[in-house]
Amino acid sequence: MDYAKASPEAVRKLIREGKITSPTTGMCDGYAQANLVCLPKEYAYDFLLFSQRNPRSCPLLEVTDEGSRALREIASGADIAKDIPRYRIYENGVLTGEYEDVSAFWRDDLVSFLIGCSFSFEGELLSADIPVRQIEEGCNVPMYNTNIPCRSAGIFHGNMVVSMRPLPYDLVPKAVLVTGAMPRVHGAPVHIGFPEAIGIRDIAHPDYGDPVTIREGEVPVFWPCGVTPQNVIMASKPSFVITHSPGHMFITDIKNVNLKY
Amino acid sequence: MDYAKASPEAVRKLIREGKITSPTTGMCDGYAQANLVCLPKEYAYDFLLFSQRNPRSCPLLEVTDEGSRALREIASGADIAKDIPRYRIYENGVLTGEYEDVSAFWRDDLVSFLIGCSFSFEGELLSADIPVRQIEEGCNVPMYNTNIPCRSAGIFHGNMVVSMRPLPYDLVPKAVLVTGAMPRVHGAPVHIGFPEAIGIRDIAHPDYGDPVTIREGEVPVFWPCGVTPQNVIMASKPSFVITHSPGHMFITDIKNVNLKY
Repeated sequence: MDYAKASPEAVRKLIREGKITSPTTGMCDGYAQANLVCLPKEYAYDFLLFSQRNPRSCPLLEVTDEGSRALREIASGADIAKDIPRYRIYENGVLTGEYEDVSAFWRDDLVSFLIGCSFSFEGELLSADIPVRQIEEGCNVPMYNTNIPCRSAGIFHGNMVVSMRPLPYDLVPKAVLVTGAMPRVHGAPVHIGFPEAIGIRDIAHPDYGDPVTIREGEVPVFWPCGVTPQNVIMASKPSFVITHSPGHMFITDIKNVNLKY
Repeated sequence: MDYAKASPEAVRKLIREGKITSPTTGMCDGYAQANLVCLPKEYAYDFLLFSQRNPRSCPLLEVTDEGSRALREIASGADIAKDIPRYRIYENGVLTGEYEDVSAFWRDDLVSFLIGCSFSFEGELLSADIPVRQIEEGCNVPMYNTNIPCRSAGIFHGNMVVSMRPLPYDLVPKAVLVTGAMPRVHGAPVHIGFPEAIGIRDIAHPDYGDPVTIREGEVPVFWPCGVTPQNVIMASKPSFVITHSPGHMFITDIKNVNLKY
């Protein structure tokens, strides 16, 4: 099966059956993928408020009803505890395991937050003849912790995580316009050009994902990233959290083009 | 004092001192005004989720910390219990009073939701040479209950309220583009042309605000309205709610132009 051309429903079924366990980059061309943060209800108000106060890092696509493994808006017939290829569980701020299915850990007080992902705007960048380096190099996008503080809400506080794509100088304005038109998947860059200005010491060693080549005449461009909640969770230490594993996303039934309106 | 040219801080001070008690249309040119919904914390999660699920009607500009009468983001030095010219109090879904100051009713468990207002895009419409009828006629914008269901969240359920502005046929597409660029203040219209299609029986008798003239060759255009929460509150009957009185808004320090980015 050509996963790029397959429907989200078909790929979610293969993931649910354990037949796909890899990162989801490039799957289901044209459809939005989402980050997952799944928390006990006692933390849900604080996290929902954190997302409202930090919409660049945490643009919410859907929030489930308490205890529900089904989604109402962005995916039909999905099971949020099985339809992501790789999950992480954090307990008291510590990563305690990675799993391909978290149904055994499910609790009736869990609320799932599905957060927009920059994979959505990469299709738009490519359509506009703007190269995306980590796709060219066949690896995960490089992501970095920064010194940009998020606005705190209840127990949740911490700094923004950014994704980086190197661009030739002359394509930077077009990339700002293309991504700025898609605020539900992180929108415009948060910084252009000077990693040290946002607290990144070594561009060659990302905190998440893989390093990519920055060529002569190119500038690193940084976007708010949906891994920000994982950094915030490590800082804020809620008792129990399920997330996706970086790069292993939830594939929705929403077309990227519909996230522009 | 020319209120249109005055600063938000100066006008809020006059409101706080009881020297302005009128609707705020046309005050503080270029600055965003906001709807208020203020609820006990026990309802705050459900209302925050309702807003997340209904961003066209309830685009949140700020949510306060529990019990705080101050704002952190959209207004400096403001007192949310005094800086609106006229408030409403609803108890168990019933409007029980209108007040110019609600500090006597303040409780330490109240959370305030500040919601974007279509006054912000009216300035943009006028700049683009699109007439705004209720400004020409010196009255409040007409608002109507519709049959468009909101997505429910916890106890909150109900139908969308819309505001209506009549436009000449040839200006409708431009008005869609101008307002569509401002999703934080309700964005593009939700309906164009056929009031009965969205459950409005008598365009001459709005449910809130004042009727305006629809001229030959003009079409009524409907936008999601920040009075929607008041309709939802009447349907959902939380024990205690403070809102603004329609047309009597909270004036923020945020320039309308900054709501486009």
